[in-house]
Formats: sequence, structure tokens, C-alpha cells
Amino acid sequence: MNPQPNHPLAEGSACPIPFSDYPHVLLAHGGGGRLMDQLIAKMMLAAFDNPQLNARHDGAVCQVNDARLAFTTESFVVRPLFFPGGDIGTLAVNGTVNDLAMCGARPLFLSCGMILEEGLPMNDLWRIVQSMKAAAAAAGVQIVTGDTKVVDKGKGDGIFINTAGLGVVEHGQIIAPASVQPGDQILLSGDIGRHGMAIMAVREGLAFESTILSDCAPLNGAVQDLLQRGLVPHCLRDLTRGGLASALAEIAETARVGIHFRQPAVPVEEEVQGACELLGLDPLYVANEGRFIAIVPAASAPATLEVLRAHPVSAGATVIGEVTATSPGLVTMTNTVGTRRIVDRLSGEQLPRIC
Amino acid sequence: MNPQPNHPLAEGSACPIPFSDYPHVLLAHGGGGRLMDQLIAKMMLAAFDNPQLNARHDGAVCQVNDARLAFTTESFVVRPLFFPGGDIGTLAVNGTVNDLAMCGARPLFLSCGMILEEGLPMNDLWRIVQSMKAAAAAAGVQIVTGDTKVVDKGKGDGIFINTAGLGVVEHGQIIAPASVQPGDQILLSGDIGRHGMAIMAVREGLAFESTILSDCAPLNGAVQDLLQRGLVPHCLRDLTRGGLASALAEIAETARVGIHFRQPAVPVEEEVQGACELLGLDPLYVANEGRFIAIVPAASAPATLEVLRAHPVSAGATVIGEVTATSPGLVTMTNTVGTRRIVDRLSGEQLPRIC
Repeated sequence: MNPQPNHPLAEGSACPIPFSDYPHVLLAHGGGGRLMDQLIAKMMLAAFDNPQLNARHDGAVCQVNDARLAFTTESFVVRPLFFPGGDIGTLAVNGTVNDLAMCGARPLFLSCGMILEEGLPMNDLWRIVQSMKAAAAAAGVQIVTGDTKVVDKGKGDGIFINTAGLGVVEHGQIIAPASVQPGDQILLSGDIGRHGMAIMAVREGLAFESTILSDCAPLNGAVQDLLQRGLVPHCLRDLTRGGLASALAEIAETARVGIHFRQPAVPVEEEVQGACELLGLDPLYVANEGRFIAIVPAASAPATLEVLRAHPVSAGATVIGEVTATSPGLVTMTNTVGTRRIVDRLSGEQLPRIC
Repeated sequence: MNPQPNHPLAEGSACPIPFSDYPHVLLAHGGGGRLMDQLIAKMMLAAFDNPQLNARHDGAVCQVNDARLAFTTESFVVRPLFFPGGDIGTLAVNGTVNDLAMCGARPLFLSCGMILEEGLPMNDLWRIVQSMKAAAAAAGVQIVTGDTKVVDKGKGDGIFINTAGLGVVEHGQIIAPASVQPGDQILLSGDIGRHGMAIMAVREGLAFESTILSDCAPLNGAVQDLLQRGLVPHCLRDLTRGGLASALAEIAETARVGIHFRQPAVPVEEEVQGACELLGLDPLYVANEGRFIAIVPAASAPATLEVLRAHPVSAGATVIGEVTATSPGLVTMTNTVGTRRIVDRLSGEQLPRIC
């Protein structure tokens, strides 16, 4: 440990991430992989220790009077601000709506905190605000409180948006990694990798035969359809930073179960696959903004699949694998030639600032 | 209007801030003055139009089942990150706790969204997290959900923190500008200008005889004491960006009432006054992070004053003025020599990135 002379450590508390390993924050600490996991577990969870945070779900579920509320937050730093299929505003609304939906909550209210960089074209801001308005209307939520800060040119990057969300949980179950049981089926709501590759195609200036559109979409409608039919999944998780592989790894670790899935069952559009190959990326780790997994008791898998397939955002839903009692904490995959291998988390990230 | 060719306006919606006036976002758009007001009113309120947002209070009050909830958000971009009397972490917790308290709510839960710049010393992050932990404990709130993003070096400024807050309103009144009535008394909780001048002293390298400490503190305890005694103010407002003058101006405009106060009644510490004179600043416009005004019916002013003075954060509470039926929308002040003048808002800001 090398505490800097002018920055003494808070009395009686040593930084839990050894300075010899990581004296400074790296881009990888925000990438959804092992380093981010370490930062959150050793620093945030250690300091703010409470049951909601420790559940490591997409949001916290809290009781206030007779209301069971879901509460979540996300900051959006995506580059570029505008991309095929959406922009930072669409993302900021749908991302938080989806985190609430993944708690099994009905999203009601959003907050909007904007950090603007001096020099941002006013017209860009207006387009983003209009996107947020349209996305909120589409998801059926209201933006009821906000805050605007401006930082000097060169100290930000156009615009960063934080949205926090408030939803109501209208069933008595706990939809979270801890509820996952061996024997549960793993349903994936559709093809993966489109959001990440839509962004990367713009960044890298790739020209595909037709443009890859982000899958950015609100997922609360599909989840609401399930809940209204009395189909309460054990766990829901949207596949953002780190993609499908990281989401499964985090759930396997938190729930102390094994997870096995079949690679050929995971839909990837041909263009997305092609772009991934061109850039040396694995679609299993690419971020999505409108895809999720539902982990459900085997008995309710057929009905869940039927309801999901009836909703446009999850029309491509399919069973990709199951939860096992063996190898707790591990995710394994059978690939196209029938070989079974461990699917590990990435250490850092392959796609910085994807959301 | 000059929409840029690559950035067509969303169909059917013209940017309401004329490009000829402000084609780009300025630092002043975040300063708590008239330009920020215009940005929020013409852009955010116009797009996200709903009663909670339109109330223009420190947070939204929303009903969920039998619970009346307060919901608020703020992003913190203060420079420097560490200052006498606190740091960005203390500020991020207290700022949002205070916004909930100003809605007359009991703060319960906070979210924490961090945007880290690549290269931030890990030890700085740890100190900030420890400050947030201590501040949350002191205010009696829990940080139950969070998010961490990392942006490339040079695209952020060390760390930006957003906190959103959730509180419960346990009385039946509406504490908001709209409830303010002519005849109400205006109580100020203590001396003003310390937070802003603590920051400015560090930035400008000013050496005062003794260091000015930020007044950063949680205000929910003092508000809770009032509510428990059945003393429900018509309006509460903490005096952050833009200071006392801007808070009064915003309330006068929103409530369509006149406000008059006596400058000699407003406490300013000698060192703060000296630092303001040195830098050519008016303490009435300097940001505070632990000061607030309570606008109360004249009949309950003495009891309110008594309760506030019994709490350490508002021990210096005093009556500074009253609400009038004349000159609706205007704030007037009688100065030390008895002259009465209009107290206007600043156009932009005098102290960028003070919170």
C-alpha cells in the first residue's frame, strides 16, 4: 500500500484493493468483468453493506408501508451519443426501465440527472430529451424529477445521463439470483449481440451490407405479461455489459448453482456474427439493451415460452440450458461440435462505454 | 434556427431554445441562475410535462399504494473532490438527503451512480466511499443500489457521483412553493456562504486566518423535529446553487407571491464576508450545503424557531423576512442603510462546479 502523503486513508480503514495491484482506476473496472466485480464487491458492498445491495440484483427491493418497491440506478456514458436504433436518451430510459422489470416490478417513475459538457450542441441535447420523452411514453413511465450540471469543456464527454427508477412489486415472490434452483430452465428472449455491434460498427466505421440496429427496447411489457399470467420466474436478468456469458456467470456465483447451456441454441444474427468475427469479439460477451434471460421452474417453462413469444420484444424466446446442482458457481457450455467447456468471465472488458 | 445537417431535429419538434441565442451549452446553464432556469423550463419541463416535475420543488412526491413517497436526484461534479469540511462523497449523500427533507419526507434509501475517470487514484475512491458510508450512517439512510461506469482519461474529471433518494412523506400537507401564502414568515437556518467559500478558498489558493469549513450537513434531523412537533412549514428549500437569493427568487416566481427580507438579519461569518469581498462575490448568491429556509405561517414562526434552534444544524435559525401579496414574483431586500431594492437572479453563475 502506498497512501499518497496528501491523501491519508480514512482512519482505521485500509483500501481493500491492493495499491500494488491497481493503484488507479482502469477502463476495465467499468467493463462488467472480473475487475468491475472486484471493485464493487471489495469497495462498495464492503462499505455500504446491507441486504438489498448484497443481493447483487439489477435493483433493490424495499418495503415502505404496504408498498414493495423496486429502486435502481444507472449512469449512461455511451459513445457515440447517437447510433443505429437509438441514442443515449433511449438507452437511459430503457436501461433503467429494464432493471426495474428484472426485479419483477412494474416501473412507475424515473429521475433524470444530466451532466453536460460545456459546448454540447443545444440541438443534440434537444434530440436526446425528445428520445427520452418518446421512450418514457413507450414504456409507460414518467420522468418526475431531474437535475442538470454542466462541466467545463474537456472535463466531460458531451453528455452523461443518470436515471434512477422506482417501481412497484405486485407479487409476493423474490425474483433474484438467490431464488434460482437446480432443475430450473434458462430461457433467452431473442438473438444476442446487436446493441454492442451497432455501436462498434459506428465506432470502427464498418460498413455492413445492411446496418445492424441496436436491440434497445423496454422489457417491462413482456415481464408484465408473464406476471399477469401468474408466471413468476425465479430470476430475470437483462444482458447488458458483459453480455449473456457474464450474466450467467454472476448468477451462478451468487446463487451457488451450476449453469449449463447449449451454444447452438443461442441465436446470433448472421451480420452480428460476421461483425464479431471481423473484430475478434465473442457475441456471448457483447452487450445487449433489449434482451434478457428468465430462469424458471421446468414445469412453467413451456407456458413462459408461449407468453414471451407472444410479445414483440421477446418473440424469439428459446430455451438455451438449465441450472444444475453440480459445479456450483460455474457456467459450462456445449459448443457446436459437442465439446463442453467452462464459460468464464472476462477480466476486463472488450467493449468500453457501450452503455 | 440552424439545425446541423447531420443532426436533423426530431420530426415535428423544434428546439425551444433558439440556436441564434445559445447554439451550445454554456457553463452558465448549470449555475442555478436564469440560463439554467430557461434550459429546465423550456427543454425538460416542456418535454417531460407532469405535475410532479412542474411543481419545481427539490423532489417529486408520488403516491404508490398507501405510501406517499418523495423521489429526488442530483449529480455531483464539485472541484476539488476534497475540501475543508467534506468531500464529493459527503456532498452526494447530504445533498440528496436534504432534497428529500425539503419535501417534508423522511429519507430512507439512496442509490449511488458513479462515473469514474480512468486514472483516478484507487485511494481517492476509497476515501470517497468511506465518506459516503459515514454520511449515510449519520443521516440514517441506506445506500441500497448502485452503478459504476468508467470513462477514458480526459473524458471525465476524476469522479462524478449521482445519488437518487427515496423517502416517505408521513404527513398530509404539501410542502412546496405552491403552498406559500402572503403573511408567511421566512426563517433562515443559520449563517450563509460557507460551502461556496470553502471551495473557492481552495481553488484560488486563498489563505485565511483560519480555514473556512463547508457547512455540508444532513438537514433531515431538524426537519423531522419540526414535523414530529406538528409544525409543518408551507415550504422548505435548501440553499444550494445560486444561494439564498436564487432560492427566494424561484419560490416567489413559482408561488406568484412577493418576498421581502432584511439583509442585516442574514448571518454571514466575518471570514466568509471577507473572502467574498476579496473575490468580488455576494454571499446572498453563494452556495450552501447545510442551510435552508422554512416558510411558515406567522402563528407558528416562534415555535418553529424554537425547535430549529434546539437542533445543531439549525442552531443559528432566525427570521429574515416575510411573504407579501404585493409585487408577485419579486424578491425585495432592505439593506443595512434601509434602502429597499429588488434582488434579481443572476443570469449565469458566479461559482461553477460548487456541488
